[in-house]
Amino acid sequence: MFSPMRYTDGALELIDQLALPAEERWLRYDHEDGVGDAIRKMIVRGAPAIGCAAAYGVAIAARRLASSEGDDAGFERELGKVFEMLAATRPTAVNLFWAIDRCRKVLTGAVVEGREACAAKLEQTAIAIHREDQEMCLAMGRHGVELIAKGARILTHCNTGALATGGYGTALGVIRAAHERDPSIKVFANETRPYLQGSRLTAWELHREGIDVTVIPDSSAAFMIARGEIDCAIVGADRIAANGDVANKIGTYSVALACRAHRVPFYVVAPLSTIDLETASGSDIPIEERVGDEILRVGDTLIAPEGVGARYLAFDVTPAELVAAIVTDRGIVRPPFAEGLAGVCRMR
Amino acid sequence: MFSPMRYTDGALELIDQLALPAEERWLRYDHEDGVGDAIRKMIVRGAPAIGCAAAYGVAIAARRLASSEGDDAGFERELGKVFEMLAATRPTAVNLFWAIDRCRKVLTGAVVEGREACAAKLEQTAIAIHREDQEMCLAMGRHGVELIAKGARILTHCNTGALATGGYGTALGVIRAAHERDPSIKVFANETRPYLQGSRLTAWELHREGIDVTVIPDSSAAFMIARGEIDCAIVGADRIAANGDVANKIGTYSVALACRAHRVPFYVVAPLSTIDLETASGSDIPIEERVGDEILRVGDTLIAPEGVGARYLAFDVTPAELVAAIVTDRGIVRPPFAEGLAGVCRMR
Repeated sequence: MFSPMRYTDGALELIDQLALPAEERWLRYDHEDGVGDAIRKMIVRGAPAIGCAAAYGVAIAARRLASSEGDDAGFERELGKVFEMLAATRPTAVNLFWAIDRCRKVLTGAVVEGREACAAKLEQTAIAIHREDQEMCLAMGRHGVELIAKGARILTHCNTGALATGGYGTALGVIRAAHERDPSIKVFANETRPYLQGSRLTAWELHREGIDVTVIPDSSAAFMIARGEIDCAIVGADRIAANGDVANKIGTYSVALACRAHRVPFYVVAPLSTIDLETASGSDIPIEERVGDEILRVGDTLIAPEGVGARYLAFDVTPAELVAAIVTDRGIVRPPFAEGLAGVCRMR
Repeated sequence: MFSPMRYTDGALELIDQLALPAEERWLRYDHEDGVGDAIRKMIVRGAPAIGCAAAYGVAIAARRLASSEGDDAGFERELGKVFEMLAATRPTAVNLFWAIDRCRKVLTGAVVEGREACAAKLEQTAIAIHREDQEMCLAMGRHGVELIAKGARILTHCNTGALATGGYGTALGVIRAAHERDPSIKVFANETRPYLQGSRLTAWELHREGIDVTVIPDSSAAFMIARGEIDCAIVGADRIAANGDVANKIGTYSVALACRAHRVPFYVVAPLSTIDLETASGSDIPIEERVGDEILRVGDTLIAPEGVGARYLAFDVTPAELVAAIVTDRGIVRPPFAEGLAGVCRMR
């Protein structure tokens, strides 16, 4: 299974998602600061992939700290700083905090066994988070495929594929599963400005697997829906609140509004690690604002006059009432979401 | 007043809107085929500006034909072909057909006076269309300014400014007029993919006049509206049907849907020449599809894998029910639009 990351000899290799599709370049990180940087700069992105990468960052730090001078108390304290550093890289995707919390619990439980044992367990934890993420994606694919009609024309936003996860994908995983059953499906990929996850990453993933994909500007999705050219929309999530509100890549809310206006089902696909029962509703989800300059350039081309300001909200919130169903690795949740989400989370 | 075109010595000069904002380059056309090409390639764009440029194309053709060999019947026949060529450049903006029709009527009325007189009259007609367009923009500004509250945060889409008209602008004309009265207004410009009229052209126009402008991705407009950061949206139009449905740059419909969801007024600004009473509703407006390649590249940067398809609908249709008011050069029309639009058109 293709994965955007591989862990070998105590180092993490990431495919550089800033260089795709022009170049397939792998970058190697043998220090946790490099992993933090890669998350911050979006060399690796996608909520589940960020969680996996952060866990590997912890594993790398633990190995390094275990083999350097110091005592167990210092080891725990230093790893605490690593958790903080990694948690501060990006604010919206909850999988990041979920993965770090899981590492923290492993550390707390194993600290009496000494530094070497802790480091080994944290490495096993990272590998397990990565492998489980792939398994959850396959499970979401199996569950979600029943929502996709034969010959469906499917709209998607951002990249929710192998590149955004441990492998296979969330919403793109469902699309992969649907394509295995019915090769006649068609995918319309919102280009997803400003980072262009749709045209650069989703089109790259689907095209190399022979899945029919057409890139459209984000702004044309609503009119395509109005013209009856879309049968369903299917997206991922960076955080799902307890009431079913969904934080996802900026532009998702626009798609959901247009789906509602034309009675086209709008589906969300995410593993349990994306559901945050501690967050009551979308208005409690912190929304990352990135540097506006990312909007004013494409590659080396400056696309606005020098000195003009830009505003880059990286995510938006889609209210639960616009969502037809949430596909999780434990099955499909339908409204009312508060009850359904609490139910699947009890399976964790 | 800044205009994107100037007519001197029988030739039309156009500012190259593909080169902005990196370069202010003027291109000179002394043959109607060049003018047709410039419209097709979007060196000049914006519904009113296209109408003005086409009229100058006719004037250039008439001068050339009047001074070459041939008789009056041949002159009329050849100009008929020029009308057809220019009318086939772009299908959606009705101002193009309106300007050509006006030229055709001038020709029919003057043909008995001979080729020289016809050519002179067609040249005067083009100059009049250009000057009247500027006057209409100023009038729209005077009428529309009353819709803009003090300190308003205004969302706009595409470029509806001096560059899109004979000068001053339609929706941007209203923003200019509002800024003259209240310099504290703030403009949020959708970047307007794929041609980037917002970031390249609107930001360029407003920034050089000291009007506060912030570029945002098209996909973030809905969430900005949801967050209460926008007081009104104001856009132009390429064609307004008799029932008030509005064809405008792709992405307009998304903005209108978000405005409706959050009770933010959505205004359209267009001269009478944009109102097409012959077209009953939006579904009768032909929607231009442009070559998908315009989506897959920004400047020299290929932003999708080789071989991936793209779909570029250049315009969308916003149903009249989402429009709060239409600002014309003859005053503000409010719902029900069928009656109001017919009323202002009787003033033509």
